[in-house]
Amino acid sequence: MDAAEFRRRGKEMVDYVVYPDVEPGYLRSLIPEEAPLEAESYEDVVKDIERVIMPGVTHWHSPYFYAYFPTAHSFPAMLADMLCGAIGCIGFSWAASPACTELETVMLDWLGKMLKLPEDFLAGTEGSGGGVIQGTASEATLIALLAARSKIIKLIQTDHPDRSETDIISKLVAYSSDQAHSSVERAGLIGGVRMKKIPTDSKFSVRGAALQKVLEEDRAAGLIPFFFCATLGTTPSCAFDCITELGPICNAEKIWMHIDAAYAGSAFICPEFRPLLNGIEFADSFNFNPHKWLLVNFDCSAMWVKKRSDIIGAFKIEPLYLKHDHQESGLVTDYRHWQIPLGRRFRSLKMWFVFRMYGLKGLQAYIRKHVGLAKEFESLVKADQRFEISADVVLGLVCFRLKGSNELNEILLKRINSARKIHLVPCQLAGKFVLRFAVCARTTESRHVREAWSHISHLASELLQELRH
Amino acid sequence: MDAAEFRRRGKEMVDYVVYPDVEPGYLRSLIPEEAPLEAESYEDVVKDIERVIMPGVTHWHSPYFYAYFPTAHSFPAMLADMLCGAIGCIGFSWAASPACTELETVMLDWLGKMLKLPEDFLAGTEGSGGGVIQGTASEATLIALLAARSKIIKLIQTDHPDRSETDIISKLVAYSSDQAHSSVERAGLIGGVRMKKIPTDSKFSVRGAALQKVLEEDRAAGLIPFFFCATLGTTPSCAFDCITELGPICNAEKIWMHIDAAYAGSAFICPEFRPLLNGIEFADSFNFNPHKWLLVNFDCSAMWVKKRSDIIGAFKIEPLYLKHDHQESGLVTDYRHWQIPLGRRFRSLKMWFVFRMYGLKGLQAYIRKHVGLAKEFESLVKADQRFEISADVVLGLVCFRLKGSNELNEILLKRINSARKIHLVPCQLAGKFVLRFAVCARTTESRHVREAWSHISHLASELLQELRH
Repeated sequence: MDAAEFRRRGKEMVDYVVYPDVEPGYLRSLIPEEAPLEAESYEDVVKDIERVIMPGVTHWHSPYFYAYFPTAHSFPAMLADMLCGAIGCIGFSWAASPACTELETVMLDWLGKMLKLPEDFLAGTEGSGGGVIQGTASEATLIALLAARSKIIKLIQTDHPDRSETDIISKLVAYSSDQAHSSVERAGLIGGVRMKKIPTDSKFSVRGAALQKVLEEDRAAGLIPFFFCATLGTTPSCAFDCITELGPICNAEKIWMHIDAAYAGSAFICPEFRPLLNGIEFADSFNFNPHKWLLVNFDCSAMWVKKRSDIIGAFKIEPLYLKHDHQESGLVTDYRHWQIPLGRRFRSLKMWFVFRMYGLKGLQAYIRKHVGLAKEFESLVKADQRFEISADVVLGLVCFRLKGSNELNEILLKRINSARKIHLVPCQLAGKFVLRFAVCARTTESRHVREAWSHISHLASELLQELRH
Repeated sequence: MDAAEFRRRGKEMVDYVVYPDVEPGYLRSLIPEEAPLEAESYEDVVKDIERVIMPGVTHWHSPYFYAYFPTAHSFPAMLADMLCGAIGCIGFSWAASPACTELETVMLDWLGKMLKLPEDFLAGTEGSGGGVIQGTASEATLIALLAARSKIIKLIQTDHPDRSETDIISKLVAYSSDQAHSSVERAGLIGGVRMKKIPTDSKFSVRGAALQKVLEEDRAAGLIPFFFCATLGTTPSCAFDCITELGPICNAEKIWMHIDAAYAGSAFICPEFRPLLNGIEFADSFNFNPHKWLLVNFDCSAMWVKKRSDIIGAFKIEPLYLKHDHQESGLVTDYRHWQIPLGRRFRSLKMWFVFRMYGLKGLQAYIRKHVGLAKEFESLVKADQRFEISADVVLGLVCFRLKGSNELNEILLKRINSARKIHLVPCQLAGKFVLRFAVCARTTESRHVREAWSHISHLASELLQELRH
């Protein structure tokens, strides 16, 4: 394929749209067992998209998709990604592609200002903090935990040079909410440290006293608390840990506080939701996913640290083939020291395109629209005496269930998903099996929400009627 | 921006091409300090690409770029990435997008067959091994090390249930070549285990005896060897560890052998280079980067394991919101258990497009062309008595230097890069400062290589003449 053909094909590809439904193993029998020896035509490949791929795609951008959390999808981000592919640079160091590194630093400052992050988290031209794009929130949590691990080891070894690293690690304890995402537990597993879950209150929120209690017990047992991962907007119910209480405790106890706001973070660009981030001033690192709810296509997880030296110090290894002339200059960032992978794509282009083509007001309007749709769904549920709301509806997620047994709700969910008209996933809240309704797609409108509710309500009526007989 | 405008804009974007040159901090002053409040037009954004981005791009796809290793860039891969962006699914589990998971499994089988990997590494419909796309080789090495760590801990605790995890970790030792990539050392750092570098022979290759010697010393000292990362095609000089000697030792000693062939792996699709992979049958895991030299754009790092249960066992955590009906079926793969991030893009589309539109023969021709160009450069260097070749030229990399001091070569490299006509990076081989000439771009032809050489040769003449005066 030459450049002229690519132009033509690229123009066709832009017109492509999606669909869905299958059993495990469906795909293998649809295509050959081996790669072809001779080149095939583009027409043959494209024909197979419809035949092989589309029947097996779960359509995350359908206005009937209410599962998990949203994943971003916008035209400006897609165009920027095309440019990223065309430039095709690998930005592991400043020298490897200066624009790739510098635009990222500035975009993270732009976004930090939209969120009104404390000045310490911004890079500016002289700041000691700054932001970076990670692939996912899982990686941000892991990086924060590893930086905290490295920092506490150095701190302890300064006073006790004879204590070995493995001896110290064996005493370390990290903490998170019992509602925290599975990736937090996984970060502890990877880092080889103990991870404890702090019990939450009736709002599924970790409070200061709960952490304090566990810390006291652990200090008394000779353990070394070093890391707390707070969640703003938990995956099950979009609950918020009380960071105004937790932050001062972490600061006093020299515990690294990382804030994971993977989903909820995008909402903090709206003044009315910004109070949910109060307490951020106590955090050492903060992360959320513009690729969830801020219209920047996956992958784009924004992470900020107050002291970039903490992160770099944990990982820096400098072979000769990666050295370059400018690296000792204060203006230069080598992002490879900030992340697990070495290579990196030019992902900040997506942020630049989206921020400019929506404008802050456009982005705020998008968030508010989703929250409004969730509120609308909540009021529909509340108006139906057979159902109950299982957690406060703060942003775009509604947790609800039929009053009654878990089994009843499990059957209802199964029927909803088998009907394939809408898609939901469940969660567990205080021992109860709960249905999650997350407003996801950019194209979801009030009529879709009402249609979804009437469908759920109809399936519930059928189910309850069957049970009565 | 509506769908119609996206179509039009997408068509323009496809026509976009690249350029390069700057000082640290250049970009910040070229754009506003904050994101705009109101939406801007696409025209304004596009104008700024030329003004802000392009002057700061290191052009990895120029036929005058000979630094690092290649990064892939092909039209079929770019089209596939556009489709990936348009579908925009997140394939963390089978249910989250069946096509995304299933095409990946089959593409890794296709690629494994192209490389003639032993059957154990293929998934097929009943295999216990299989492949996965990681973002980078760094992540593959880390995943392998963590899986090995988890496996040895379980093994030891089976016999000694009272031994704690941290106690075991404190005795673990991982090994790699002293020529291994910095990411291998970093994996050890992240995993919290000791990492030792095995000295290489005169060809920069780890031999069996060298590993055996260190193992004996470490066992005698009460340490537990558990992981060896062999490199096929090292970053400094494209040297090959002797895995036919190392493999049997690792197998006998129950040490996980991971093979990192990040760059060289692509060449193994050619029968004449396949012998370089002999010994793969002893490995537990194997990885290389189609995004380097197999025309599949970044990111696409292919990794295979013999026992997928080893990898999954190291990480599996199952919250309710990620459970789905099919997950206990043998046909279903939930790739989130195979990797550090949770979310994942539909990257196998790139492999599918590239494999079909080039065909195995087209890919082999591409590899052979690059090797041919490197051989041509080697013969030009060899014909010039002032220069020496510093390592065997096996694939697309030529290590060379002026006969004489390291300082002399450092000056030469500085002048080459300051002239900005071509771009090279250095390495260190047996204490010598060496210049690396890696054939990188898809568009590099014999005339570019000859032009690069005449430029280097001219700069060397100038330098040597200055020194004589």
